[in-house]
Amino acid sequence: MPQTIISRLNAVRAEMEKAGVDAVVIPQADPHQSEYLADHWQLRRFLSGFTGSAGTLVITAGEARLWTDSRYFIQAAQQLEGTTIELMKMALPGTPSIEDYLIGVLPAGSVVGIDGMLFSRLSVERMLEVFNAHGLGLRTDFDIADSVWPDRPALPDGQIFVHDEKYAGSPASAKIAGIIDAAKSQGASCAFISPLDEIAWTLNIRCDDVEYNPVATSYLFVSPAGSELFIDGRKVSDEIRGYLASQGVEVMDYSDVKDFILSLPAGARVLVEAAHTSATISSLLGDRAVFGPSPVAMPKACKNEAQISGIRDAMVRDGVALVKSFMEIYRRLADGGALTETDVADILRKRRSEQPLFFDESFGTIAGYAEHGAIVHYEATPETSSVILPHGLLLIDSGAQYLDGTTDITRTIACGSPTAAEKHDFTLVMKGHIALDTMVFPAGTCGTQLDVEARKFLWREGLTYLHGTGHGVGQFLNVHEGPHQIRMNNIPAPIMPGMVTSNEPGLYRENIHGVRCENLLLCVPAMTTEFGEFYKFETLTLFPFDLSLFETEIMSADEIRWVNDYHRKVYEALAPHLTPEEAAWLAEQTRELR
Amino acid sequence: MPQTIISRLNAVRAEMEKAGVDAVVIPQADPHQSEYLADHWQLRRFLSGFTGSAGTLVITAGEARLWTDSRYFIQAAQQLEGTTIELMKMALPGTPSIEDYLIGVLPAGSVVGIDGMLFSRLSVERMLEVFNAHGLGLRTDFDIADSVWPDRPALPDGQIFVHDEKYAGSPASAKIAGIIDAAKSQGASCAFISPLDEIAWTLNIRCDDVEYNPVATSYLFVSPAGSELFIDGRKVSDEIRGYLASQGVEVMDYSDVKDFILSLPAGARVLVEAAHTSATISSLLGDRAVFGPSPVAMPKACKNEAQISGIRDAMVRDGVALVKSFMEIYRRLADGGALTETDVADILRKRRSEQPLFFDESFGTIAGYAEHGAIVHYEATPETSSVILPHGLLLIDSGAQYLDGTTDITRTIACGSPTAAEKHDFTLVMKGHIALDTMVFPAGTCGTQLDVEARKFLWREGLTYLHGTGHGVGQFLNVHEGPHQIRMNNIPAPIMPGMVTSNEPGLYRENIHGVRCENLLLCVPAMTTEFGEFYKFETLTLFPFDLSLFETEIMSADEIRWVNDYHRKVYEALAPHLTPEEAAWLAEQTRELR
Repeated sequence: MPQTIISRLNAVRAEMEKAGVDAVVIPQADPHQSEYLADHWQLRRFLSGFTGSAGTLVITAGEARLWTDSRYFIQAAQQLEGTTIELMKMALPGTPSIEDYLIGVLPAGSVVGIDGMLFSRLSVERMLEVFNAHGLGLRTDFDIADSVWPDRPALPDGQIFVHDEKYAGSPASAKIAGIIDAAKSQGASCAFISPLDEIAWTLNIRCDDVEYNPVATSYLFVSPAGSELFIDGRKVSDEIRGYLASQGVEVMDYSDVKDFILSLPAGARVLVEAAHTSATISSLLGDRAVFGPSPVAMPKACKNEAQISGIRDAMVRDGVALVKSFMEIYRRLADGGALTETDVADILRKRRSEQPLFFDESFGTIAGYAEHGAIVHYEATPETSSVILPHGLLLIDSGAQYLDGTTDITRTIACGSPTAAEKHDFTLVMKGHIALDTMVFPAGTCGTQLDVEARKFLWREGLTYLHGTGHGVGQFLNVHEGPHQIRMNNIPAPIMPGMVTSNEPGLYRENIHGVRCENLLLCVPAMTTEFGEFYKFETLTLFPFDLSLFETEIMSADEIRWVNDYHRKVYEALAPHLTPEEAAWLAEQTRELR
Repeated sequence: MPQTIISRLNAVRAEMEKAGVDAVVIPQADPHQSEYLADHWQLRRFLSGFTGSAGTLVITAGEARLWTDSRYFIQAAQQLEGTTIELMKMALPGTPSIEDYLIGVLPAGSVVGIDGMLFSRLSVERMLEVFNAHGLGLRTDFDIADSVWPDRPALPDGQIFVHDEKYAGSPASAKIAGIIDAAKSQGASCAFISPLDEIAWTLNIRCDDVEYNPVATSYLFVSPAGSELFIDGRKVSDEIRGYLASQGVEVMDYSDVKDFILSLPAGARVLVEAAHTSATISSLLGDRAVFGPSPVAMPKACKNEAQISGIRDAMVRDGVALVKSFMEIYRRLADGGALTETDVADILRKRRSEQPLFFDESFGTIAGYAEHGAIVHYEATPETSSVILPHGLLLIDSGAQYLDGTTDITRTIACGSPTAAEKHDFTLVMKGHIALDTMVFPAGTCGTQLDVEARKFLWREGLTYLHGTGHGVGQFLNVHEGPHQIRMNNIPAPIMPGMVTSNEPGLYRENIHGVRCENLLLCVPAMTTEFGEFYKFETLTLFPFDLSLFETEIMSADEIRWVNDYHRKVYEALAPHLTPEEAAWLAEQTRELR
């Protein structure tokens, strides 16, 4: 493998020399700024051999370096060995940014090449500013994937299908009308949409182009005179073509998008979002671009009644699958068999896939036993998968895509009789979880303001966690969606009724264990007073927390009551769908905490 | 008076016609972006007759309008009556911004005039953007104060004096060296400082140019080759001149500042802060300006050991003055005499002024009885001052400048036997006060993240307050200082050890009463763990809360313990400085809450 990688790097260098490019930057990205990529866009993985989900490769005539974050330091070091690619550990003191590295090694007058389709306009603007100040040039048309990757996978050719209006709650035509209204309010007459989940939501279509995200590789142009969906024609059956036509949407080929933009009249005013539109598309739009907030992000985030009803239904089925899964997990632990982390993931996938309306998992299950639980984005592989022993903590973060809703739940369970320290860590995390779950807050409040509620009990003891507390969740769409988040850094989007948000504080003790407790929350109105409108959360997720892990001595009466109320609700919602044996198990798991 | 105002407006219009200016914008501002203004800069008050501390006057050939906020709607309406000036109620639906008003009434090609010394560079940039888009011109040299204000007060001529190093803790020369280092780290070699408190802090000088703020009207230029203080020479005695020279500071006349800036070499790199440097100064600096964060704000905000020690001492003297004041207030209430709101302010001023090292009040006392307490910035005048009756709530917000520290405290007291509703409101506010006081948080946490702690108990009942929860406080300097704040909107400055911050949640029920509970807090280190450094607060203010107002039924054991611990600390700190009668009173006021 190392030799293969070296020859791939040299193929890139040959292209660089041909084009007069002195360095190339190859990101983990597609033209839609997606979180998960189809194989077609995995050029960085192909060239470097590194399979992590985050990393950027930089190649010069004499060097190759790969920047990645702390989640992947060990894996990257192993996979890069012998390839001549040097690992750059991001966010460590002494590690330069890619821009700083390039201005350091390249003499003035050098040219950096990138494929502008893979970078947002904002990131290219930042790059240009730095490079200009140091006499470096930037070419944004340096797309070498086809040249250096002979067996490059084709674009995905899965069939798109309609997301039934009984789940979506609103026809595509109405959503398109809303986008046109939003464009008008921002001084534009039409809109160009790149993010795949925004397109899927707008048109009520789904596909399986990307792992875990039920979206289709496409672009969407929306205008009062009719809309265009740019997509590989093989993905669109006649029936779907007819459906799209009925919503005023014409199908054009994915590769036609650049010519189409160039053909727009000079006076067109096209709304685009700077952060999620590629530099190339932005520059093709030129003066026709009106940069503004996405016209889709807010209506997509604020679910309608049909969507909320579907999500609640999906939570019941997911809860039933979780009961069956955890019963099996506990049984196999009790049997003393060699249950591994990958077994846990397999059990969850199997039980969920037995449920009606199941489509896929919503992300790769994280089953981290003992010290693996402290690795925040751990995903067990056959090589790393631990056998779970009858002591210590097991952290399980998993979720599913159902046609009517997306789930995401984390439970931390004791594999034997828990220690006082394990109970203490778990209970501190739960106190924060409960505090956030029970917040009431005025309209306009942002997640950044609420975040402290989930952390304060940890902080009091000198503990914290570095990830966000909550992310938005789509409905049968991406498990991570904006614009709202609950985290320490400033996210100005307010939490609004209809938004679904995760509530997942955690605590990670390196080489010992990890704790995370996650439910999904729905923002709902609480009350209106002379001081304005107030909102609160409805807990959507339905599965008990491990009662053996609560240190009740440090819990308030209100907190204990919350646990009991939640567990009663879980039992009442799930029991009608369980066998007597399962219901009995759940009754025991949701018994009163005192 | 109305006729006088009309003739003043017409004098302005005559100047406008002479200069070819179609509208003039006259702000409540000085060239230092001060919160409180010397009389010399009160042109807006002179021209409009409106005496509120916030408001902007706009005059065109045919109209005059005054924009002010909700605190002043009633007062402004009264004072503007008959003057032809129309009141513009800010933040009400339908009230245009000043820019929108001007682009609405002025035909393209019109010219707006302002005195660029009274506007920050940032605000002028915003104005230019709007005006350019609508074909309006902007003149920034339209300074008409001397022409239209025959008896304009001179610049203040108070004597500056040295703030003793035993209080300041660091010599001016060291602070100047620190500013030069900060300038270098931002790519500049020197710095130009406009804010008066930053200059006073840097040079360890004080004065009484501005009500409540012990500062001197001046500019400061700091460079490795020596520094220049621009100030009216009459304010500087030979002794002070010698002191300044010993710190490498030369005195130049206040009016020389513009010529001095123009005389700087073209290659000079001068650090200035965009938000606190006037548009005129910025444009005189031209390419020499390096815009960046203030090199003074952070070291000024993070108090050194000598300053902290002085502040703690000042708190004891302030607490003693408060004991004497509140004993008198309660006695006069009990006597059934006609105690008024202005009497309360007089008592506090008198008792504080008897204390050693007293210099001034730190702001005008707010003593708001019953419904007046719900007016957040209420200041009683002889006309409005209520007689305090033996029922209802009295809100008292006051503070002092001592040579070693600045105080700011709010107490809400029951004037008779409190009602259940009064106790409930007070206790909700106190629960938030205690929650913020007891926070432990990691290094890097900003006030925006902590703010919710003070509000959550109110939010739960559909209540809130619209002001910030905490502001920075200077040491024998401005009672409001940055960069840190604790409030709902995003303030990115972290709370650092040595910073003093107010903790003042409140609740205001219109036409009924106001509650606010305010102590000053000092940020101090709490602990260092494998998760990093953590900070907490030390409570600085020393005076009891009204025990009769606590609804203990809704308080946790921890909250009741906090009240008792705090009251014990207050008693132990103040009792040694009290007469036996006073100590007995304080013992009763700090008796245990159960």
